[in-house]
Amino acid sequence: MNSKATPRVVIVGAGFGGLNAAQVLAREQARITVIDRKNHHTFQPLLYQVATAGLSPGEIAAPIRSILRHHQNVEVLMAEVIGFDLERRVVEMTGQEIPYDYLIVATGASHTYFGHDEWEAFAPGLKTIEDALEIRRRVLLAFELAERQAAAGETAGDTNEPLDFVVVGGGPTGVELAGTLAEICRHALAHDFRSIDPKRTHILLLEGGPRVLPSYSEDLSRSAEEQLRRLGVEVRTSTMVTRVEPGSIRIGETRLNASVILWAAGVAASPLGKKLGSPVDRAGRVLVQPDLSISGHPEVFVIGDLASLKDDSGKMIPGVAPAAIQQGRFAAELIRREIRWGSPVAAKPLPRKAFRYWDKGSLATIGRAAAIAEFGRIHISGFLAWLAWLFVHILFLIGFRNRVLVFIQWAWSYVTYERGARLITGSTELPGWTGMRHVNPESSVPENGAPEREEITAVARK
Amino acid sequence: MNSKATPRVVIVGAGFGGLNAAQVLAREQARITVIDRKNHHTFQPLLYQVATAGLSPGEIAAPIRSILRHHQNVEVLMAEVIGFDLERRVVEMTGQEIPYDYLIVATGASHTYFGHDEWEAFAPGLKTIEDALEIRRRVLLAFELAERQAAAGETAGDTNEPLDFVVVGGGPTGVELAGTLAEICRHALAHDFRSIDPKRTHILLLEGGPRVLPSYSEDLSRSAEEQLRRLGVEVRTSTMVTRVEPGSIRIGETRLNASVILWAAGVAASPLGKKLGSPVDRAGRVLVQPDLSISGHPEVFVIGDLASLKDDSGKMIPGVAPAAIQQGRFAAELIRREIRWGSPVAAKPLPRKAFRYWDKGSLATIGRAAAIAEFGRIHISGFLAWLAWLFVHILFLIGFRNRVLVFIQWAWSYVTYERGARLITGSTELPGWTGMRHVNPESSVPENGAPEREEITAVARK
Repeated sequence: MNSKATPRVVIVGAGFGGLNAAQVLAREQARITVIDRKNHHTFQPLLYQVATAGLSPGEIAAPIRSILRHHQNVEVLMAEVIGFDLERRVVEMTGQEIPYDYLIVATGASHTYFGHDEWEAFAPGLKTIEDALEIRRRVLLAFELAERQAAAGETAGDTNEPLDFVVVGGGPTGVELAGTLAEICRHALAHDFRSIDPKRTHILLLEGGPRVLPSYSEDLSRSAEEQLRRLGVEVRTSTMVTRVEPGSIRIGETRLNASVILWAAGVAASPLGKKLGSPVDRAGRVLVQPDLSISGHPEVFVIGDLASLKDDSGKMIPGVAPAAIQQGRFAAELIRREIRWGSPVAAKPLPRKAFRYWDKGSLATIGRAAAIAEFGRIHISGFLAWLAWLFVHILFLIGFRNRVLVFIQWAWSYVTYERGARLITGSTELPGWTGMRHVNPESSVPENGAPEREEITAVARK
Repeated sequence: MNSKATPRVVIVGAGFGGLNAAQVLAREQARITVIDRKNHHTFQPLLYQVATAGLSPGEIAAPIRSILRHHQNVEVLMAEVIGFDLERRVVEMTGQEIPYDYLIVATGASHTYFGHDEWEAFAPGLKTIEDALEIRRRVLLAFELAERQAAAGETAGDTNEPLDFVVVGGGPTGVELAGTLAEICRHALAHDFRSIDPKRTHILLLEGGPRVLPSYSEDLSRSAEEQLRRLGVEVRTSTMVTRVEPGSIRIGETRLNASVILWAAGVAASPLGKKLGSPVDRAGRVLVQPDLSISGHPEVFVIGDLASLKDDSGKMIPGVAPAAIQQGRFAAELIRREIRWGSPVAAKPLPRKAFRYWDKGSLATIGRAAAIAEFGRIHISGFLAWLAWLFVHILFLIGFRNRVLVFIQWAWSYVTYERGARLITGSTELPGWTGMRHVNPESSVPENGAPEREEITAVARK
């Protein structure tokens, strides 16, 4: 590299960590390249709202390009990074390489099926806008198909078997999904159907460990479980799913019907972590130095959910947005200092301090006016915790426009119980769907041979 | 049918015609069943705004179920109708039949490729939310891919070849798409890219006939063409596309590059029209009686874009929203009268009056503050016509919530020139994309072998 040339910083991944790093470096004498395989940053903490038809994709995602448009030294590329050559200092994309002086890898994590990738087709996870739209499609479609089949085999009165929804995993995402699903069935959809009763939907939340929200203190876990039950969710802890099939799951030898199965268990780091050639932990996260760089490469940083690091007390820094934001800023500030005063490739590198995670507290939402919050020794549950959650999330939503729109949207839903984003787009089929009464969709004959059928398929006319 | 039983009206299709018919019948002693293969009504006049990233799908579409939720006698089924048995009076769906006393078929029209269905993959049309998202994906992705390739083969200064967008068809949809595309390139995207200049995008509008917007008077067509040119659109009339290929089109023997091709030519009626067994016109529309019923079946009505009917002066009633709304209401009112006072299957049918189309005028928008309007002899162009267009469209947007949100959205875009819905979801590939300099995407070597390449792929370091 020409030592007089503007140093180039490449940031891979425009999540919370990557975006914050780019913003810190935006006014430096450096050329910043942000690479992401999507054109948009997704505000992941609200993804479950898209999945449950409360918000539209555009309300929780914004083009990376427009978030960073005012920074003349930042360029954005929509491309898939396939590897790195740390010796030549290049990022590898299909048919293209981008050189760097500093590299920040922030490609995060996704859900994992513990070696059963074939389950994904029957039990989608929730990490991207596309995932959220797929979950929304399945949830809403289940009601539509149930209504259609109930109307075909209709009997006097309301005798429909409930729809069965299963959420696998009792972490924050699973709890949010289960709680919000329970609410939309009770309120938003309650008056929309004539043949089925959405209120009778059965929602089952399965957690492998002994309690939901295991990263919170025990009293808050208990409170969350209680709030879930009050919303009508059945919670089963210490329960492992042994198999996922179209339309059902197995727990040991027991088979449970499931119109829709949602996967909120298991997090695996982005596979790009392994391409850095450094040791990774069991979840594929890169073991980083206290300064967030990787061993032997002070110019390469790994941040956010992709990084594995313990704090002073030996506790793992959690894979949450505040940690990613703090790490993104920390790495960018180290780079900024070195660009100004030296360089890791210079003869005498500047000494670096260690990253310290500042835990401001945690919030998890369960439903309308239901949440838990933990700020050190202060533990809050219910409406107050929910207000805190609402405030923090609207405050941090990226982009002023979205903040206002989301607020209007929420105020509207809160008053009317209405869900504003209930479109089904894409395929109109559901894997394993055989109807609530296990009717073969190719035949209109219900297994219990309802006598009313004749009136429906062939009406005698005078 | 038991003559004492509640009569059953089945409405197939929940566009403007079907929804209005359902609403007229909502308070009658009749059981109304609305069947649509989507769960949502789409406000088609604003679909081009979703395609050009101005509005989100949820802002122009609403679940049919929630639009009709307050009418206790109306049920909604999401299902695909595959045929009719007019003798037995049943609507046929896969594995299910629904009997009717009255049937209203309102399944509208879609675009046609004049026998070249293989063109659809390279030139999507605009009839559904899915279509609009596909067009949005392609338009935005073209810029992203161009930026990526320009960054890879970058030369000093701004030397990119412009992106070529081709819109086939100069009717209202083609004009809206071309005009709005021109605007987003000039304004919304102008500051977002570092390596390409979106302002240099070339937009070509092709019309087979002698003038754009042929259903309007000649002076307004000329004005629309002039307004399009001012926005930077190249308009070619009397030009037929002879072939569509991935990344290019042919006009006779001439081949033109096209990064994105959009299809706004050719309308064909829904194939369900032919299943009624009545004569259809060249576009597949059902020739209806003056009372909108089909010959020999006074209990079966065809309305909206699927119906073919001439007014008193022998002019074809146009396939526009107001005509569909008026026809839906007309048919429903006939049915209401007969349910109250008699029945077409009764011994003595009531005499029926003929449908009369009340043409309130036509509006076509071209871009920001650009439109034309024709109210009888009053012809308006430009800002005033655009204001009229805006007013009418916000007024008729279905559902209060959307109306407010769309207004906020538009006020915001008008002031800031920002497009709020610029997410790329789904595939990140573009058919026929070879890059602006015709670079093979599998290789980073531009055909003109830019010498800067070496610096990019392998930077010598000290």
